[in-house]
Amino acid sequence: MRITLSGICNTDLEIARGYAGFRGTIGHEFVGVVEDPGPGPIARGERVVGEINAGCGGCARCRTGDPRHCSTRTVLGIVGRDGAHADFVRLPARNLVRVPDIVSDTAAVFVEPLAAACGVLERAPFAGDPGARVAVIGDGKLGLLCAMVLAAGGSRPLLIGKHPAKLALADRRGIETAEVAQAHQRGRSFDVVVEASGGATGFELALALLQPRGTLVLKSTFHGLTPVDAARVVVEEITVVGSRCGRFAPALDLLARGVVDVAELVSEVLPLDRGAAALARAAAPGVLKVLLDAR
Amino acid sequence: MRITLSGICNTDLEIARGYAGFRGTIGHEFVGVVEDPGPGPIARGERVVGEINAGCGGCARCRTGDPRHCSTRTVLGIVGRDGAHADFVRLPARNLVRVPDIVSDTAAVFVEPLAAACGVLERAPFAGDPGARVAVIGDGKLGLLCAMVLAAGGSRPLLIGKHPAKLALADRRGIETAEVAQAHQRGRSFDVVVEASGGATGFELALALLQPRGTLVLKSTFHGLTPVDAARVVVEEITVVGSRCGRFAPALDLLARGVVDVAELVSEVLPLDRGAAALARAAAPGVLKVLLDAR
Repeated sequence: MRITLSGICNTDLEIARGYAGFRGTIGHEFVGVVEDPGPGPIARGERVVGEINAGCGGCARCRTGDPRHCSTRTVLGIVGRDGAHADFVRLPARNLVRVPDIVSDTAAVFVEPLAAACGVLERAPFAGDPGARVAVIGDGKLGLLCAMVLAAGGSRPLLIGKHPAKLALADRRGIETAEVAQAHQRGRSFDVVVEASGGATGFELALALLQPRGTLVLKSTFHGLTPVDAARVVVEEITVVGSRCGRFAPALDLLARGVVDVAELVSEVLPLDRGAAALARAAAPGVLKVLLDAR
Repeated sequence: MRITLSGICNTDLEIARGYAGFRGTIGHEFVGVVEDPGPGPIARGERVVGEINAGCGGCARCRTGDPRHCSTRTVLGIVGRDGAHADFVRLPARNLVRVPDIVSDTAAVFVEPLAAACGVLERAPFAGDPGARVAVIGDGKLGLLCAMVLAAGGSRPLLIGKHPAKLALADRRGIETAEVAQAHQRGRSFDVVVEASGGATGFELALALLQPRGTLVLKSTFHGLTPVDAARVVVEEITVVGSRCGRFAPALDLLARGVVDVAELVSEVLPLDRGAAALARAAAPGVLKVLLDAR
């Protein structure tokens, strides 16, 4: 594919700092146009996004059509495969998904992180129940997307964060918000808490907010060892569920139906040749999504 | 009830060291004879065991018949209620379960910890599937009981421990066993791992043994903060499930049917008035269950 736009994820920033030991081109959020399709149903010139896990195609997991846990997979811009902060990128044709005309390039570049947010519902389906009491910790890009997905699905999540401007963005979409200190006052009243802040304090807050037998969805990749009150997990019989990548179809559907609007999450768009500056901007406080324009 | 026998649990040893801040008589594993039944279906002179969580009886959780997560519960010998290392003990009549004649006093005193082991199947039902690849970490009393419950249920657990004599006890019951170093060689090949060693190294080993999307059942109460590789939980999409108390009915059923034989788990029986010495014995290396005889 020839890349149109790519998005900078916090994982990119972590990899640039040495996480996962990856050497190569980073970037795993993109929308592009097929340049060399090879054999398969997708033609040259089609506008596509691409699932980032490229499986072996032959193992039991891949044969179910889900390569996300193939033990020999490569992962776009993360494990063994050059990524999308580039003019061109390669993926197996089976990873590509056509983008409907109604979805703009700016929206389509959010399919990957939005799919990751949809992954919460794959791992904790009851989080989407109308009666479920759900909180999302972290008002960064991922937390906002998780709250938007949950709200679109019918539950009424509480988004907990530290940044008034980011919380206001959720507020404008009808999502209830709270700062961390207020959230603590809610006590153990949630059935599901999605941890999307990536910090040990987020993990601790999540345990403090959960009902006995509640579910904590870990959405952020933590680095190093996180100190966890495991006795609390046992005594309260908490379920902790890790969640990484989602499938693209439900995310594209949310964008095509206009149920989730990601436009306001874009803080800046920089040309690809200003990639280093763009990474620095993405790491600045208060900045949400930074896009790279490769056109 | 007038206590016949009570069992010393590791939790008793922890409480004696200050865990949970409990002040009172410890002991939550017992078999006894009803002395003063009050109103209700159980008569004076009946031989009983008793579920240890005494709920308020009126909240939503209690009204389902399950007081284990009642927020104002007392817990026998652990929270706000004097326990069973005594001549007499009091529990609400609804907590009592008659012991069938076929179950000896020595077996009946194991109903509480055996119920806790059965709790694994309540929180991770697929661990009992014949095809499930299940490991239990920890060859202490709880680990042995978990392995015995799983084997009785139809799966073929691997028990992982450090003590040849304890592993041999499982071996004699047809349970496959491995020492920790051998277990590491099994790689990520288990669907379910039950952590019953209570140590951070057990948690780490469990993560190393689990397949992607596998389930880690935390069965031991860990003390303090356990350092956890949370990124592994996210990337491999592991589910961590806390498990505390089980219900007594399935445990009594296993004993009554003779499917689980606990006799060999008894290391020593001491008279109640040697309680301090009995606690010291229970803490000694290689010792399994120490019982107190209150007759």
